[in-house]
Amino acid sequence: MTDIFARLESLIADRKRNGAAGESYVAKQLARGRLKLAEKLGEEAVETVIAAVAQDDKALVGEAADLLFHLLILLGDRGLSLDDVRAELERREGLSGLAEKAGRQT
Amino acid sequence: MTDIFARLESLIADRKRNGAAGESYVAKQLARGRLKLAEKLGEEAVETVIAAVAQDDKALVGEAADLLFHLLILLGDRGLSLDDVRAELERREGLSGLAEKAGRQT
Amino acid sequence: MTDIFARLESLIADRKRNGAAGESYVAKQLARGRLKLAEKLGEEAVETVIAAVAQDDKALVGEAADLLFHLLILLGDRGLSLDDVRAELERREGLSGLAEKAGRQT
Amino acid sequence: MTDIFARLESLIADRKRNGAAGESYVAKQLARGRLKLAEKLGEEAVETVIAAVAQDDKALVGEAADLLFHLLILLGDRGLSLDDVRAELERREGLSGLAEKAGRQT
Repeated sequence: MTDIFARLESLIADRKRNGAAGESYVAKQLARGRLKLAEKLGEEAVETVIAAVAQDDKALVGEAADLLFHLLILLGDRGLSLDDVRAELERREGLSGLAEKAGRQT
Repeated sequence: MTDIFARLESLIADRKRNGAAGESYVAKQLARGRLKLAEKLGEEAVETVIAAVAQDDKALVGEAADLLFHLLILLGDRGLSLDDVRAELERREGLSGLAEKAGRQT
Repeated sequence: MTDIFARLESLIADRKRNGAAGESYVAKQLARGRLKLAEKLGEEAVETVIAAVAQDDKALVGEAADLLFHLLILLGDRGLSLDDVRAELERREGLSGLAEKAGRQT
Repeated sequence: MTDIFARLESLIADRKRNGAAGESYVAKQLARGRLKLAEKLGEEAVETVIAAVAQDDKALVGEAADLLFHLLILLGDRGLSLDDVRAELERREGLSGLAEKAGRQT
C-alpha cells in the first residue's frame, strides 16, 4: 500500500485534472486560486505555531496534518510534488555531508 | 535506503538526545527552545506563502523544504513524528472514505 | 473629534466590560478567547503579506485595517492599548536619537 | 508635538526619497524590496502571535511595536500611509453605524 502522502497527492492531481467536483474539498480549494491556496497555508501555519506554543500535542499533530495537506495542494496546484521537496532536502543533505567531512555538522 | 524524511527525523532525534553539538544546526535550533522553534516554523511558512504568491516555483520548493524540515524539528522537540501526522491523515482519509460512501467526496 | 483608533479602543473596552453583546463582532471575538484572538491576528497578517506581494494597494489598505483592528482587540483583551505601543516606539525613538548623535541613524 | 506614528511615517518617507543612507535601518529595509518587506511584516506578526499565546505582555507590546513599525514601512514603500488605513476604518465605522441603526452592532 502506498504512503498516505502519495495517496493524497494522487487525489489532488485527480481533482486538478477533473475540475470542480461538487462536494470535493480539494476541488473547491483548487478552484479558489493561487492567492487563496497560499492564504490557507499561512493560516494553517499560524494554527500550528499556536498549538506548539500552547504545548497542546494533540492539536499540534492535527494542525501539522492540516499544514501538510494544504502544502500538498499548494504544490500540486503548480504541478509540483513532495518528491521535488524530497529532492531538495536530499541535495542539501549531500551538501551537509560534504560540510561534515570538512568538519561541520548538520 | 530510507526516506529522506525518516533520515532527517533520525538525525533530529539523535541531536535531541546528545544535546548541544558544536556546529550542528539542528542542535542549535533545539537549544533555542519551544517558542523559537515555533517562531521559525512561522517564518518559513511566511516565506512559502510569498514564494507561492510570487509564482516562483524554485523558491517555493526551497521554502517548502525549509518548512518541512522545521516542522520535523518542532515535532521532534515534543517527541512527535511524521508518523503521528500520517496516522492523523489516514484517520481522516478513513472518515472521508465513509463520507464518500454516503455521497460526499474528499 | 477623537482619532478612529481611540474610538475603536473605547468600543473594544466597552464590549470587554459588558460581555457578550448579541450581534457585536468585537464581543464575539473577545468571547472566543486568547488563542483565537492570536490566530485571527496571524490570519490578517497573512492576508496583508499576500496583498503586499500581489501589489494590490486597495487590498493592502483593507487588510492593514483588519490587521490593526484585530491588533487593538488582542491588546485590549489583555488590558493593553495603542498608547503602550506608542510609548515603546517613543522609547526606541529616544534610543535611536542617542544613537544618531553617536553617529548612527534610524 | 506630532504623534509618534506621524513622526515615523515622516522618517520613512524621507528615507524613501533619499535612498540608501548608510546606517539607516529604514533605508536598509526599503532597499531590500517589496518581497522582503512583506516577509518582515509576516515575521513580526508571528512573533506577536507567540507573545500573545505565551501571555507575555511586555513581549506583546514590544512585538506590536515592531509589527506597526514594519507595517508603516510596508505601506510607505507603496506610497500609502496610516491615514489611508484610518479612512478605511472610518468608512467601516460609518457602515457599522448604519448597521447599528438597523439593529446590529459593531
